[in-house]
Amino acid sequence: MLDFEFQNSTKIKFGKNSLNNLSDEILKYGNKVLLTTGSSSVKKIGLYDKVKNELKNSPIEIYELNGIEPNPKLTSVNQGIEICKQHNIDFILAVGGGSVIDAAKSIATGAVTDKNIWDFYLQKYSVEKALPLGAILTLAATGTEMNGNSVVTNWKTKEKLHIGSPLLRPKFSILNPENTFSVPINHTIYGCIDIMAHVFEQYFSSTKETPLQDKICESVLKTTIENTYRVIKKPRDYDARANIMWCGTMALNGIIALGKASDWASHEIEHQISAIYDISHGAGLAIVFPNWMEYVLDSNIDIFKQYAVNVWNIDDSNLSDRETALKGIYKTKEFFKEIGAPTTLDDVDIDDENLEVMAKNAARFGDIGGLKKLNENDILKILKKSL
Amino acid sequence: MLDFEFQNSTKIKFGKNSLNNLSDEILKYGNKVLLTTGSSSVKKIGLYDKVKNELKNSPIEIYELNGIEPNPKLTSVNQGIEICKQHNIDFILAVGGGSVIDAAKSIATGAVTDKNIWDFYLQKYSVEKALPLGAILTLAATGTEMNGNSVVTNWKTKEKLHIGSPLLRPKFSILNPENTFSVPINHTIYGCIDIMAHVFEQYFSSTKETPLQDKICESVLKTTIENTYRVIKKPRDYDARANIMWCGTMALNGIIALGKASDWASHEIEHQISAIYDISHGAGLAIVFPNWMEYVLDSNIDIFKQYAVNVWNIDDSNLSDRETALKGIYKTKEFFKEIGAPTTLDDVDIDDENLEVMAKNAARFGDIGGLKKLNENDILKILKKSL
Repeated sequence: MLDFEFQNSTKIKFGKNSLNNLSDEILKYGNKVLLTTGSSSVKKIGLYDKVKNELKNSPIEIYELNGIEPNPKLTSVNQGIEICKQHNIDFILAVGGGSVIDAAKSIATGAVTDKNIWDFYLQKYSVEKALPLGAILTLAATGTEMNGNSVVTNWKTKEKLHIGSPLLRPKFSILNPENTFSVPINHTIYGCIDIMAHVFEQYFSSTKETPLQDKICESVLKTTIENTYRVIKKPRDYDARANIMWCGTMALNGIIALGKASDWASHEIEHQISAIYDISHGAGLAIVFPNWMEYVLDSNIDIFKQYAVNVWNIDDSNLSDRETALKGIYKTKEFFKEIGAPTTLDDVDIDDENLEVMAKNAARFGDIGGLKKLNENDILKILKKSL
Repeated sequence: MLDFEFQNSTKIKFGKNSLNNLSDEILKYGNKVLLTTGSSSVKKIGLYDKVKNELKNSPIEIYELNGIEPNPKLTSVNQGIEICKQHNIDFILAVGGGSVIDAAKSIATGAVTDKNIWDFYLQKYSVEKALPLGAILTLAATGTEMNGNSVVTNWKTKEKLHIGSPLLRPKFSILNPENTFSVPINHTIYGCIDIMAHVFEQYFSSTKETPLQDKICESVLKTTIENTYRVIKKPRDYDARANIMWCGTMALNGIIALGKASDWASHEIEHQISAIYDISHGAGLAIVFPNWMEYVLDSNIDIFKQYAVNVWNIDDSNLSDRETALKGIYKTKEFFKEIGAPTTLDDVDIDDENLEVMAKNAARFGDIGGLKKLNENDILKILKKSL
């Protein structure tokens, strides 16, 4: 196990009654609130009205930014920043999925600086100050509800980049599984794949002697797999939605990989795909991950074998370690297919036209990955395997 | 899954270099520090000198309270409170095991009130204010390093009671597995049993549909069991000590049982034993727990069967659910014996003289337990089974 530091002070309010006392939670930080939402679905499911209703008998003044898009755009972020500056906003309340919350974190950063927000994503500056924010989650996927990460896309330059700071952790996040009941099945599935992908990035490591962390990773993976099947059959299954929602948070709140080196190459590669083609992040991960696994397998066959046996119950009695590991990777791909996700770039109508550009962009800040360092050429090979 | 709220802002600094920057961590809260320690072992292992050394070139003024005993005594707590009041202490730094840290939490509460500290344990008052505190842990066991609980013994009245508040969570806890290398083997074992017992209290529940929480509980149990064997063989095995230490924290930082009803009857019963007889808490738990398990088994055979299969790998193919469950309980007891723990009251020279008093005290605030509500008579039966 490696040395580590851990602190995560986000308050999680989970369950059917988690919206209660919303105004009290907000008023700890001020009363001028920017409410941000994405598509019209928060209105359709009645959540928008419930939130407004919760706040109406309080001294809270609400300003709004609606229509933040999936793979949130820099332009929306800049709009939000302007509202904050113009009205001296105290607190941002993001109601939506990962994109809406990530955009809110970006707005929170930009609202208290005169610097160009995109320069933070270009790593010219680090986050030293931010408005406080809270989240009401409507999609189990990114884990942004309990971490300090934000991913934003600049559609002008076709770049999808991230920033991270403890200052960007939501002060509170409200997780009501009922708010995910009407998420369309494809987005539900992509969310589940995103959750699994976050675990993969932290599980497949070269760090030895992290048995508790590994077992917790396997717990999140198995619970996500079991409950993905359930939710496909019955989208309004409260417990299945609750289990997936909690897996999503646990997958990226820092706990599962303490004392381990993480990887994150596959996310970096996928970001290049969805920066150019507007595909769902989860779909991109389903395409990239099995190919990444095969490409890096020989860097640590043990961990891939452990994955095959503990997550997919592969019987390894007559197999070499490598054969067992390969079976686990194969099962992963089969699972993605079975639940209806794409597993090749061709499945989402992407050809080889931009692979070189993607590889180059993925390595723009240097080699990527932890288990195996990947240069531009390695990344290109993985992308070609994914065609 | 039940609705839940979760927030835990303790900063964990884990590993070989975790003592670095100690003074910076403390100076966020003030410069007049009460340093509390237990037995002379922190001096023997050189930790006391290292701590003093880390602080010596800082503006920190140190006051000291040494010699806090296992099952910490109210008298020590009152001494600490007096020092805090006399010298306007800003921060308490507890260096030791669970007892030293629990006593520090008690001092932190008493230092900012004119009320009698014992009245908080008698539930006359709740904690509304406390001095900030930090911990440097030297024994993996109680999990107090990342929660707001404190257990203290009043040797005059033979009562062992607890208080709990988020205000009592350490601001930071420093966990260096090397600081546990020289813990005697019996205390190491009792610590491991304490860790397992904390998981038991949260795992054996009647709440359904908590697969992730259950799997994480099983992960902590299996990791603790595997590493207990290792550390008995090789007490200075860094990774085994690290794994146990991290299990100890995870077992009681709130994560493993979110959305579940907990039990805590066995702890309540054990506290009555170690309030009268000065035995180690872990030893008492090894005696009580298998008997409690048998006594409450029929309230939820499923969870005991799941425990037998997932933690102890019991082959259930030719067994009834109840037989499988019983095998798991049997294996638990066998494990405790195998690692050298007592499993009967007789093993620690306790006879039936005080069983009625213990049963009465355990139920003093009402029936106890979550999985099955236990009254005084139930508790007495469990104590008699434990003879």
